[in-house]
Order: sequence, then C-alpha cells, then structure tokens
Amino acid sequence: MGRCSLLLLLLLIAFLTPGAANPVSPSLRAPSSLPWSTSFRSRPTITLKYSIRYIQQKVDHFGFNIDRTFKQRYLIADNYWKEDGGSILFYTGNEGDIIWFCNNTGFMWDIAEEMKAMLVFAEHRYYGESLPFGADSFSDSRHLNFLTTEQALADFAKLIRYLKRTIPGARNQPVIALGGSYGGMLAAWFRMKYPHLVVGALASSAPIWQFNDLVPCDIFMKIVTTDFSQSGPNCSESIRRSWDAINRLAKKGPGLRWLSEALHLCTPLTKSQDVQRLKDWISETWVNVAMVDYPYESNFLQPLPAWPVKVVCQYFKYSNVPDTVMVQNIFQALNVYYNYSGQAKCLNVSETATSSLGVLGWSYQACTEMVMPTCSDGVDDMFEPHSWNMKEYSDDCFKQWGVRPRPSWIPTINGELDPWSGGGVTKDITDTLLAIVIPNGAHHLDLRASNALDPVSVQLTRSLEVKYMKQWISDFYVRLRKMN
Amino acid sequence: MGRCSLLLLLLLIAFLTPGAANPVSPSLRAPSSLPWSTSFRSRPTITLKYSIRYIQQKVDHFGFNIDRTFKQRYLIADNYWKEDGGSILFYTGNEGDIIWFCNNTGFMWDIAEEMKAMLVFAEHRYYGESLPFGADSFSDSRHLNFLTTEQALADFAKLIRYLKRTIPGARNQPVIALGGSYGGMLAAWFRMKYPHLVVGALASSAPIWQFNDLVPCDIFMKIVTTDFSQSGPNCSESIRRSWDAINRLAKKGPGLRWLSEALHLCTPLTKSQDVQRLKDWISETWVNVAMVDYPYESNFLQPLPAWPVKVVCQYFKYSNVPDTVMVQNIFQALNVYYNYSGQAKCLNVSETATSSLGVLGWSYQACTEMVMPTCSDGVDDMFEPHSWNMKEYSDDCFKQWGVRPRPSWIPTINGELDPWSGGGVTKDITDTLLAIVIPNGAHHLDLRASNALDPVSVQLTRSLEVKYMKQWISDFYVRLRKMN
Repeated sequence: MGRCSLLLLLLLIAFLTPGAANPVSPSLRAPSSLPWSTSFRSRPTITLKYSIRYIQQKVDHFGFNIDRTFKQRYLIADNYWKEDGGSILFYTGNEGDIIWFCNNTGFMWDIAEEMKAMLVFAEHRYYGESLPFGADSFSDSRHLNFLTTEQALADFAKLIRYLKRTIPGARNQPVIALGGSYGGMLAAWFRMKYPHLVVGALASSAPIWQFNDLVPCDIFMKIVTTDFSQSGPNCSESIRRSWDAINRLAKKGPGLRWLSEALHLCTPLTKSQDVQRLKDWISETWVNVAMVDYPYESNFLQPLPAWPVKVVCQYFKYSNVPDTVMVQNIFQALNVYYNYSGQAKCLNVSETATSSLGVLGWSYQACTEMVMPTCSDGVDDMFEPHSWNMKEYSDDCFKQWGVRPRPSWIPTINGELDPWSGGGVTKDITDTLLAIVIPNGAHHLDLRASNALDPVSVQLTRSLEVKYMKQWISDFYVRLRKMN
Repeated sequence: MGRCSLLLLLLLIAFLTPGAANPVSPSLRAPSSLPWSTSFRSRPTITLKYSIRYIQQKVDHFGFNIDRTFKQRYLIADNYWKEDGGSILFYTGNEGDIIWFCNNTGFMWDIAEEMKAMLVFAEHRYYGESLPFGADSFSDSRHLNFLTTEQALADFAKLIRYLKRTIPGARNQPVIALGGSYGGMLAAWFRMKYPHLVVGALASSAPIWQFNDLVPCDIFMKIVTTDFSQSGPNCSESIRRSWDAINRLAKKGPGLRWLSEALHLCTPLTKSQDVQRLKDWISETWVNVAMVDYPYESNFLQPLPAWPVKVVCQYFKYSNVPDTVMVQNIFQALNVYYNYSGQAKCLNVSETATSSLGVLGWSYQACTEMVMPTCSDGVDDMFEPHSWNMKEYSDDCFKQWGVRPRPSWIPTINGELDPWSGGGVTKDITDTLLAIVIPNGAHHLDLRASNALDPVSVQLTRSLEVKYMKQWISDFYVRLRKMN
C-alpha cells in the first residue's frame, strides 16, 4: 500500500511554495489600519499546562443498534480563560496523538491570553488513546466501521455541548474551531454542519483537495517538485534521474546488496519488489521534507534543520553523476531527514514519520472516505511516472481492509469544492469561513508557535486570523446581548 | 406503545388554529406590491402524470463495512419542465408511501408550469416500497439500524446528484426542497446540511418540535383542545368528561361488553388494559381529526367532510349527560372520522389512519431520534392526565425495539431550536429558510392542491411561497452567469 501511505502525507501538506524567495503577495500586505496583534511580539516560551480528560462517547452516533461507548481523550487549558467576555478555542484533532498535535500548535497557546480563551484539544477517534474498541480497534472492517469524518465531527459536537453544560461560565461563550491539514478540513466541515455550535472555523493548511477528479491528479507532485527545483540548482532534475540510477544498479548481479549497504538499510533488499518499496519510501521522504520545510530548526515529523529542503538539495547539485555517486548522494540527503540527530544506526524503509501519526487509521480512512487521486508523470514532476487507477486502488483497499472506497461521498456530503473556494450556495457562510493563502507557508506553519524566523507572510497571516476571530467573538456577544 | 403511536400524529400536525374565525394576521396580509401568483386562479384539476423510478442506494452511507444496496423509489414528472430557466422541485418524502404523499401535494403540481419545474418525489427509506432489507426490514434492531434522518437525507443527496448527472439539461438547474410535517423538517435540515445541493427549502407545517424539553410537553394537547373548544359549544368540556364516563361504565359488571357493543368495536374489550387502549385510541382519533381539519371534503388520513372538527363537535354539545348517552355520542363522533363513507361494519381499535403511513417505521423513529415529550393534565387540555416519564418511555422502546432513544441527538446535530426560529449563528442561512405561520392552516394545507374553499391566509401563503422560490431560482441563475 505504498500509495495509501503516500496519501497520509498529502494531508499534512500546505500550499507549498519554496524557500523565502517569494515576496509577500499584495493581498497579504497588511492594510495600514490593521493593528499588529500583541501576541506576536517577542514573548517568552510558554509552558504548556493542560489537564488530560476523557468523555464517554457513543461508538455509533448514526445508528441505535450498537449502544457501546468509548473514552475520547481531550486536553483542556484554562490558565488564561476569562468567564467575562472570553472564548473557547477548540482544536479539531486529526490523524494522530492529540498531545503531539497540542505541542505543535503553539499558535493557540500564544493567543490564549489575548483571546481570554479556554483551549480545548479533542482527540480524533481511532487515534492516540481514543480507541473505540481498545486494542481490537483495527482488527477488521467491523471494528473500523465507525472511523469516519461524520462520527468524528459528532464526537466534537457532543464534547462542546458537554463542556458548555458542565463548566460554569462556559455556556454563553463563543466557540471557534481550529485545525490543521486534515484537521483543518474537519474544522471547516464542523462550521458547515454544526453552525449552531461554533461561530467560526480557522482551517489552516488544509490540503488542496483532490476528491473525485476535481483537480488534476498530478498537481500535488508538481507542487512538491517546484519546492525542490527552487531550493537548489539541479535539485529536482537530479532526483528525477535518481530513480533510473537505482533501477540500473538493482538489475546488476550484486545490485541489491550494494544498494542496501550504500543506503545503510536496516533490512537488506532481497527481491525486485523491494526496490519498488525502496523508491516509494524515498519519494515519500522527499514529500515529507517539503511539507515540514520550516524556516527554523523543528521537530514535527522528525528532528530537522531550518529550511530542510535547501539542506537536502545540497546533495543534489549535480545531476550528471555516475549511478553509484547518485546513490551515495541520496544517502546523504536521506540522512538530513532521518538522522539529523546523528543517532540513527541504519535507515528503516518501513518508517517515514513519527509514530505519533496514526498510520493504520489513516490508511483505512484513505481507503474509505478520504480518496484523493494522485499521479506523477516524471516530466512535469521529479517522480517516476505513476498513473492513477481507481480499480487497482479499490482492489488494494479491499485486500487490506475488506472495504472499498466511495470516492464521491465526501463531495456529496460536503460540496464539490473545498470549503474556501465554495462559491454559489455556500456563500452564505463564507463570512465565517475565510481563506488566507500564505506564500512561503509550509505545512500549517501559522498554527505553530511564533518564532523570530517566521516569514513576514506568516506573521501577517496570524494577525489576520486573530483579527477575524476577535470579530466573530464580538459579533457573538452583540447577538447574545440582543437576544437577552 | 400507545404513546409511541400518538407521536406519529404529532408529526402530522400544523400550527393548528380553529375554524375560519381568525382574521388574517397583519404579517400575512399581502403587501400591495405582492403579485398574486397566477397558479392559484381557477384551474382545472390536473391529472398527476409521473413515472415511477428506482435508484440503488447504499444501505449505510455512514459506514463501509456493509456494502449492501437497496432500491429507493421516486416519482418524476417533467411535463412542464423546461431546460431553459427551469427548476427542480424536490419533495423530501416522509413517513409513508410516496405515491400517497404525491397525491396529497397538489401545490407542487399546481405551480409546476409557472416554475418550469421538474417534480421529483423521493420516498423515505423504510417506508412504502423503499425497504432496505425487504420484508425483513423491521425484523429487529440490526435491520432497523439504518432508519435515521441522516441516512434519509444522504439518500436525497445521492438522488439529486444522480439526477443532475444523468438528465441532460438538469445539471445547471436550481433545486428546491419541499416537505410537509416530518418531511418539512427533513427539507429544512437538508438545506442546512447540504447547502450545495439545494438553493432553498420550503418546510410546510413542520411540527412545533418538542425535542429535549425545549417546549413544555403539554403544549401540543393544549393546541388540539383549543381547536375543539372553538369549533362548537361545550365540545372540549364534553370530551374532557367523557374519559370518566368510560371509566365508570367499565367498572360495572357487564361494562366492557356494553361499551364494546355501544361503540361497535370489531374486537370486544375483555380486560381492564383494553380500556386504556380504547381511550388512547379515542384520544388519537381526536388529534387526527384536528390535524386534517380542512375546509373542504378530503381524503388524507380518512375520507372526511369539510371542517370535520365542527362535525364531530355536533355530538358533544352537552357535557352534562348520563354516561351511557355520552358513550353513544362518542360513537357518533367517531363515525365522522371512521365511517364517513358509510361502509364500516365495526370500529377497529388498532387503526387510526390510512395504511399508507408507515406506523412501524415511525414507531422506531420515535424510539430513537424523534423523541418529542408529550403530556396532558386534563385541566388546560381535554385529555386524561398523563405525565411524561422518559425512563418509562425508554424502557417501552427497549422492550419493543431493543433500542433506547437518544433525546438530545437531534438538538445536537441540528441545533437547539427548530430551524425557523434559529437565531444566532444559524442566521446565516435564514434568507433561504423562511417561516410563514398560517392562521387557519391545518396540517400542511398549503401543500395541498388549490381549492375554492381555501382560507385567504392559505392562498396568500402559497403566493408568498412561490414568490420566495422564484427569488431563489433567479438568484441562482444570476450566480451561475457570474461564475461562467
């Protein structure tokens, strides 16, 4: 399921543009009247003080035959919360451990005081500790049947109602949904489906959806390629040529052994299918690096230097090198991602990212609702040509999970387009569902804690986001006063 | 499950006000600029020409483990449909046979030509012929698990997308959802949850929702009582006294036999529980009569004379009569409802309405999502005192269906209030989700075919409805032109 795990990465990617070369787009220049939020002035690092709680949730919100419940985990921080004029910032958890996401969403902590906000981080069912059937949750399609976006949104709705009912002073407070990448889609969909529960949604770096042929399947790999081609001379061209270098070496007598040693693989390649797996893994690695191309040292998917794509590209300056040299360069480049700490003894082809991400759960979601066709042609992108074949994809899914994807379901329930571009009849809610495109903005960079190295565009975006959220909150209080 | 079947009736009731005595409310007087729709001028009766079709639907839209499909029935009429500037009027089927509803929704037929409209009547799953598991559909809670409003709305969404995809010329046409009573709620919820698929919703006579204590539980019986008390002297008072008359007679030696004979019951009463069942059945009958209190002869739940509550009240002019006389009067009054045709040989305590209504399906829905607490006190209403007991209700449901209701689920997913009053954050969509309260308007009278005896208020309502729908359609075409 190389392609399934590749789709995992799709979800974590923003509107990628390379390095820091791009000027701020006119639409993002702050109007002179826009006050800079105080949140982003230099501020000491905040200690994340939260408590861990659990709520009993129905396993199946959409049917009554199964009455079983499970414990959903959520984090709550009220250090800066004020009953008077405060707000609730609700993180719609995505495909991984909620504590890990909480630690990587410094933006919410940075603005808590300014927004007088209670912070809530809700874990997505089937990830982290929120397992509907405990250790059996992934055992078969019967146990996985309740892993859907609709069930996850219903969990969030129940949790918000529960918090409002049980926390004195929370009842009449506005709630804003926030999320990044897949969680950003959830935040947006939550605002669309449960407008009575949240006054707005901040959906950061939600992927350019590719559901059901709405966007050409090759767009994603093209964007990744652009990031590499603009981050160093010959970089994408070298990578484009690297696949054949691997292929040629693999065909030689001792090729597999040589490749295994040159790349310091933990498990040596033994058969030709292993070579395909190797290439898939390397592809995913480059996609990951593009995704976390942050301007400063970070540790999200892996510990990484600042601007990691530039660092990787230092090893791909020359595209016309002997195959063996090419492979040695690949190894050096892989080391940037997998061994920045210098602790790795060997490279493991079956891992591309932190174990905090729920790879199993996402693989199932990609085989059911979250089908996003991807392809590459090796000409306009730097990857090996790979066409999209829905039938093959569906058969693979059936083999792995016993289910078949329903690629038109998400567009049916949520509209043909991603919510931001949602013109036409969805215009009704665009005043609280806004789009901000961030040049230089890697993977939901805006949700991360403020950093001195943040590009100006990201700083401006955060200011805009705070401005809009404050507006939604004050609109809410105006309506509330009118009703009373 | 007397109360469960009583809830069925709740769904069919409008904002009941009695007779034709009330003046038109100021808000309903047509502004001088409001053009009367041409639809409602005298028009020959239209023959309903439709074709019956079927679409394969997933039994479970919200899970992937069950991939089974079933045939959903729908009716389609395109006699007056125009590709150029036309529209699609989509009836969101409710708890019964779709052909029966189609025949009782003359309004759509009346306006088809004016709106250049294709008419679509979609049957609700688990009703009529649209049975997910055929004859086994009601066999147990496992088979009934897919009878929910969310699944029904998803069926409608799939059907609309299918029609747009397969009917040449339909793709770029605006769709309006229409429905009455429970179907009216579905139409409103459909507009809220699927705003990308319908430009507006006309929700006629959707009940005053009583979900989860939002409204006092006794309001419904009070409204029914008002209808009776204003339709004849002593009418509600006589009915209020009738219960004790029955009780006293039942306690006498040959009381049950005498009652059975006096009321011409098909199955004689034999034990004391039968008396409670008899009274429940009579109560439901009065509720039904109030509901179909149309100004002309009609045949919806039963064949009935014009203003049937007035006719019933002719037998309740005297409240101070001997118990035996009272029971004979009850019999005469019941005859108005059960034997207007003069064909009935006896009265059947287990039936209150046409078999076109899906009583089994609704009983399940009332035991799961559609919990609407009702009660009566015998003082402010004409019924026997009956408190609401959620625990008892839930236990009854578990006994009958093996499921327990989740009374807070509908408010969680759709908001605390019925969509019309939906202030606050749902204000965003109120421009296409409008409320019109009709004085004198019995059970979705506005959806019925135009009739010379219609009160002015209903005629005005229909004009307003057409005006708004035309506005939504023209707004849609303006947006469409802008996008192209």
